[in-house]
Amino acid sequence: MMDDTISFSTEHRLITRRGVMRNADTTLSDALTGDATRIIAFIDDGLLAAQTRIESSLHKKLDPDRLTDIAHVPGGEACKNDPTVWLDIARRIADRGIDRHSYVLAIGGGAVLDAVGFAAATVHRGVRLLRMGSTTMAQADSAVGVKCAINLDGAKNMLGTFVVPTAVINDFDLLHTLSDTDWRAGFAEAIKVAIIKDAALFDTIASHAPAIVARNEDHCQRIITRSAELHYTHITRGGDPFEFGPSRPLDMGHWSAHQLESMSGYELSHGRAVAIGLAIDSVYAARLGVLHDESARRIVNTLDALGFELSHPAMEDTGRLLQGIESFRQHLGGALTLILPAGIGRTATVHTIDKQLMVDTIRRVADGATQAV
Amino acid sequence: MMDDTISFSTEHRLITRRGVMRNADTTLSDALTGDATRIIAFIDDGLLAAQTRIESSLHKKLDPDRLTDIAHVPGGEACKNDPTVWLDIARRIADRGIDRHSYVLAIGGGAVLDAVGFAAATVHRGVRLLRMGSTTMAQADSAVGVKCAINLDGAKNMLGTFVVPTAVINDFDLLHTLSDTDWRAGFAEAIKVAIIKDAALFDTIASHAPAIVARNEDHCQRIITRSAELHYTHITRGGDPFEFGPSRPLDMGHWSAHQLESMSGYELSHGRAVAIGLAIDSVYAARLGVLHDESARRIVNTLDALGFELSHPAMEDTGRLLQGIESFRQHLGGALTLILPAGIGRTATVHTIDKQLMVDTIRRVADGATQAV
Repeated sequence: MMDDTISFSTEHRLITRRGVMRNADTTLSDALTGDATRIIAFIDDGLLAAQTRIESSLHKKLDPDRLTDIAHVPGGEACKNDPTVWLDIARRIADRGIDRHSYVLAIGGGAVLDAVGFAAATVHRGVRLLRMGSTTMAQADSAVGVKCAINLDGAKNMLGTFVVPTAVINDFDLLHTLSDTDWRAGFAEAIKVAIIKDAALFDTIASHAPAIVARNEDHCQRIITRSAELHYTHITRGGDPFEFGPSRPLDMGHWSAHQLESMSGYELSHGRAVAIGLAIDSVYAARLGVLHDESARRIVNTLDALGFELSHPAMEDTGRLLQGIESFRQHLGGALTLILPAGIGRTATVHTIDKQLMVDTIRRVADGATQAV
Repeated sequence: MMDDTISFSTEHRLITRRGVMRNADTTLSDALTGDATRIIAFIDDGLLAAQTRIESSLHKKLDPDRLTDIAHVPGGEACKNDPTVWLDIARRIADRGIDRHSYVLAIGGGAVLDAVGFAAATVHRGVRLLRMGSTTMAQADSAVGVKCAINLDGAKNMLGTFVVPTAVINDFDLLHTLSDTDWRAGFAEAIKVAIIKDAALFDTIASHAPAIVARNEDHCQRIITRSAELHYTHITRGGDPFEFGPSRPLDMGHWSAHQLESMSGYELSHGRAVAIGLAIDSVYAARLGVLHDESARRIVNTLDALGFELSHPAMEDTGRLLQGIESFRQHLGGALTLILPAGIGRTATVHTIDKQLMVDTIRRVADGATQAV
């Protein structure tokens, strides 16, 4: 028997900068390092009016001999639900002669970054990837990550891979055209990571909820930047970037969020689903005695103050919702390992769920989360 | 800007053992380490009569509560040419509840190991994989590797990923039912790695060519085992397991091999295509003055003595065949980097090709490789 170790090391870079699409800005061309010959850009259809501006900016900014194509991708879960959309993206990357020293530039929400990222990670077994999130959700969380996936027969993120992008570029200016609903969404992940790791960030979000709803730029940018940094640092320093261990510490509230999204046929957005998931797990933790009632109330009230509606018809089928726990366990395998809030900035790990208590908790949250504790 | 490094380390294990399917043998159950809950097996349709024996052996050997399914996969390039075959494999892995602590067991030739491996590497972003090559080609080379891919619109291995299997198990007993053509195929890769790294192995192959053709077990097993070890050591110790550098030192002769396979609609097997590719590159290297004529003749004569037919109609279209050089460059990107034989056990690196000399070389090899130098 031969038994040896394969080791591997790669850079993970997060650039936070405004005005990347302005004429004078060189962030993008600077990011195309080495002997890169070509680049192809994919832009989220959801960017609507901003799309034309970004396209013309890319044409001005990038050497026409290198920019092979600017393609559009249907935004939202649509581009992840149908594997042929993903295959077409892969085909386009291959057809344009993008090689392992060339770049795919993905500009969009989390779903588009996922589908384009998975294609870029598999054409030629992985070409270089630049990610620019165009939603608060992508900039606060998903774009910074090292995961990409599409859905398979309705099962969320069933098919994908780990991939470290060459660079993640967070440009706050890309967020202007978001609807209020999409604006709010990313703050669910910011609250999540604040509960897990950073009480000060939670205090900032809680005390500035009206400013967030009013889309105050300074406050919002500071919160999203801090959320991105916390996710980034967890991935680079947390010791398990590719999730070989039994736990997914950044996925608090996600067992129910993923299941509710799937149950709603992806009508429910990831942001709102995570907000509901955080409410469920916080109320459950309080009733279990793991979290002070007062802290659970602060979490639920903050989600409410941001305008998240914490009740959804899919929550009525508690039996099917509870199957989300098994799906969550199964993704990593091994024993069930769930992270619950044990305070603001502190977590507890549990390996079993009291099903009766959880069903009752889901019903209470559905009936009115702010009165659930 | 945040700029940090993600590091990652994983075991790569090669087990060489005969009789793994015998009742008393515990190799397979021993390989299912940890808290594995489930296993699904995929068997190459090309195994024909041996399939039933393997199936009944797996049923005896593995706990029925853990063995969720034994599925069949069409053998040869068919399973790589159609992405829906690959998606169906992925679906089956997902449907049987295989999680990141559970196992996919792939038994088959290189193509089946590729398609099943790529599915296993992407369901849940990668479940555990056990690979058992059922051809000399797979045992001598492909099963030991850390690459898996399928073809996209006829382009060989265009879509795939790097993946380190939990274990590779080489059982010589699986090779008994191979046709003489398939038997011969793996020795093309053994000759290739011998030319690159091990003159003694080349001498063994050259002096035992009749024994290889006669399928003498002792000689053949020794050669295949040595070839697997050389490939294994290059991957674990060569410094670039995931091919970030400009060179693919194990892919001598493969620029033309991959192109010829594609041009022939995959009628030409990978083994014979590699044999032709080695003949072309050896004759070219000799005419360039990089390799002694005598060494080139030894290489060509050894390929001939093993029964490889070194001429194929696809070689007539030299223009299209030469495009294989650009495809090869493009897969890694950057400057063209080709490895040529510079002796038996020694290589030279070139960054340009003399097209006229190469076209003339291809014609000479097609007209009769053994007289080409």
